[in-house]
Amino acid sequence: MIVAGVDVGGTNIEVGVVDDEHKVIDRVKRDTPTDGPDAVVETIVSMIESLDEDPAAVGIGIPGVIHDGEVLTVPNLANWTDDVDLLQAFETRLDVPVALGNDVNVGLLGEWVDGAAKGFDHVLGVWMGTGIGGALILDGRPFDGSRGAAGEIGHVIARPGGALCSCGRRGCVEAYAGRRQMAAIAHAMVDAGRATSLFDIQQEEDKAKPTSKVWARALDEGDELTTQLFDMAIETLGLGVASVVNVLDVERVVIGGGLAEKLGQDLADRIAEAAQPWMLRPDPDLSWVPASLGDDSGVVGAASLARARVIAG
Amino acid sequence: MIVAGVDVGGTNIEVGVVDDEHKVIDRVKRDTPTDGPDAVVETIVSMIESLDEDPAAVGIGIPGVIHDGEVLTVPNLANWTDDVDLLQAFETRLDVPVALGNDVNVGLLGEWVDGAAKGFDHVLGVWMGTGIGGALILDGRPFDGSRGAAGEIGHVIARPGGALCSCGRRGCVEAYAGRRQMAAIAHAMVDAGRATSLFDIQQEEDKAKPTSKVWARALDEGDELTTQLFDMAIETLGLGVASVVNVLDVERVVIGGGLAEKLGQDLADRIAEAAQPWMLRPDPDLSWVPASLGDDSGVVGAASLARARVIAG
Repeated sequence: MIVAGVDVGGTNIEVGVVDDEHKVIDRVKRDTPTDGPDAVVETIVSMIESLDEDPAAVGIGIPGVIHDGEVLTVPNLANWTDDVDLLQAFETRLDVPVALGNDVNVGLLGEWVDGAAKGFDHVLGVWMGTGIGGALILDGRPFDGSRGAAGEIGHVIARPGGALCSCGRRGCVEAYAGRRQMAAIAHAMVDAGRATSLFDIQQEEDKAKPTSKVWARALDEGDELTTQLFDMAIETLGLGVASVVNVLDVERVVIGGGLAEKLGQDLADRIAEAAQPWMLRPDPDLSWVPASLGDDSGVVGAASLARARVIAG
Repeated sequence: MIVAGVDVGGTNIEVGVVDDEHKVIDRVKRDTPTDGPDAVVETIVSMIESLDEDPAAVGIGIPGVIHDGEVLTVPNLANWTDDVDLLQAFETRLDVPVALGNDVNVGLLGEWVDGAAKGFDHVLGVWMGTGIGGALILDGRPFDGSRGAAGEIGHVIARPGGALCSCGRRGCVEAYAGRRQMAAIAHAMVDAGRATSLFDIQQEEDKAKPTSKVWARALDEGDELTTQLFDMAIETLGLGVASVVNVLDVERVVIGGGLAEKLGQDLADRIAEAAQPWMLRPDPDLSWVPASLGDDSGVVGAASLARARVIAG
C-alpha cells in the first residue's frame, strides 16, 4: 500500500509518499502558510494532488494536541484557532482516509517503525527544537495519555523557581534546553557585552534565527557562550529525562530534532552522561541514541499512522 | 474463585482471603520476620495454612522490584539477599499458583479493581509512607516498565541540589515527603531547641517511630514544626506529581498509604493544590482522591494478581 505522510512544521510542510517498507519514494516541500488553518489545509491538499502517486490514505503530523484523531489545540502555528475540524476538512477534500497525530508523537512513531526505536517496547523520545518535545512508546505501543497531551518532557520541572518558560511556569526543562530560550539568553549576553560567534554564524548562514545548524557550528568552533548555554541545556535536560526514566523505566531514549541530526551520537551520549547521577536504578541496558531517519521521521511516522487508519477501517 | 492476597510490609504481613467480588472474607496478620527471606516465606506459608479456606491461588505484594514474577531487588526488608527464587519457594511449599508483585503496584491494582481507581484508564498512584512509592495504570492496564522498576515518583528530582535522599541523590521528592526523612529533620530541629509535640504524641501512642497516626495527630493539634514539615512535603510532592502528569496525562491521581488513610480527601486536595501551578495543560477532569480500600488495597490487589495468574494459566 502506498500512503502519504505529512509533517507540518512551523516553517515547512513536507509530504512524502511512503511504501510498505517505510521508504520515502517521492516527496514535496513547501513553506507553512502563516494565515491560519484553511491555508494550511489548502496547501497540504494541493501538495498531495501534485504527487505522481495516488496514496491510499494520508497521515498528518501537526504541532498540537491531538486525541482520537481530534485536534484539541495547535499552540505552535500562526493564526490558528481551536475550532477547526481538520479531520473532516481533509477527508472531504482528499477522499481517502486521513489520520492526524501530534508531530513529535508521529516523529517517534517513524523512528519506532523503521528507525532508532525499532524493536523496543519502552522508549522515551526527546525532540530538541525551538522547544523541547517528547513522545512515548510504552509496553509495545505508542502512548499519548488520557487526552493526547502526554510526553511533555519539556515541561518537567527541573529547576523550580528557575528560568521563566514560554508556558508561563518557571524552571521547566524547555526554559533551559529549548533553542528559543537559549537564543534569547545569548542575545541578552551580547547586550551585556559578551562576545559570541553565534550571531555571526547565523548571518553567514543567512538564517532569521539561530537554527540547529548555527548552534552546531558555533559549538564546533568552540564559541564560549554557546558552549556555556549548551552545557546548561544538557545538564537540565539530563536531569529531567532521568526523572522520567525513574518513573517509566524505559529501555531506550531517542534524541530527535535538528540538533540530534547535526550532533548525532555525541549529543545522545552527553545527555546520557548528564542523566546518570540522577537515576535511581541505573539500567546497564538503557541505551541512548539519536534518531536515525533524520528529517524523514515525521513523514514516515505520519505514513504509518495513515496505514494503521486503513487497517483499522 | 477464592484466592489469597498477601501484603508484605516492613512491619506486618497481612493475608486476606478474597472472593470474586474482591471482598476480604477472612484475614490474618503477623509481624514481619527480620531474619531474611526464608523466615518470611515460612511465616507466609504458615499463615496461609492457618486459613479455614483453601485458596485456589496466592498473590503476594513485596516491597521490591519484581518483573515477570521474578524478584529483582528487595531493598526495604531486613536481612534480605537478592538471590532467592521466591516464586519457586512459594509454589513448592503451597502447591497452588503464586503471583508476585511490587507492594505499591499491587496496592494501586487493588484500588483499580475495586477502589478509588476503578473505571479509570490512566492513573498515577502515590503511596505516602516511610518513603514515597508510586504506581501506574496506563492505557487501561497496570504499567511497570521494562524491568518492573517504573513508578518511582519518590525519586523524581524536585529540588536538584536540595536535601539528601536515602537513595544517595539530592532533591528527590522522597527526601522531603517521606516520613523517614521528615522524622529525621524533626529530630534535628528538637536538638536545635525547637519545640514540637510530635515526639510526645509518639510516646503517648507507644510507637517506636512517628507513624502516620502520630503525624496526623500532631497536624490536627496544630503543632508548628509538624505543620511546617508537612507543608514542605506537600509542596515538593505536588511539584513532582505535576511533572509526571505533564509527561503522562493521567486522568486520576490516587493517594495511598497511612497518611492518606488518616487525612483522606483533605490530603488529596492539598496535593492537587500544590501541583496546580506546575501543570502545563491543567485538565478540568483530572481528579485527586485518597485510596478507598485503606489497609486492604494491598491484599485485594495481591488477590487480583493471583486470580490473573490462574486465568493466564
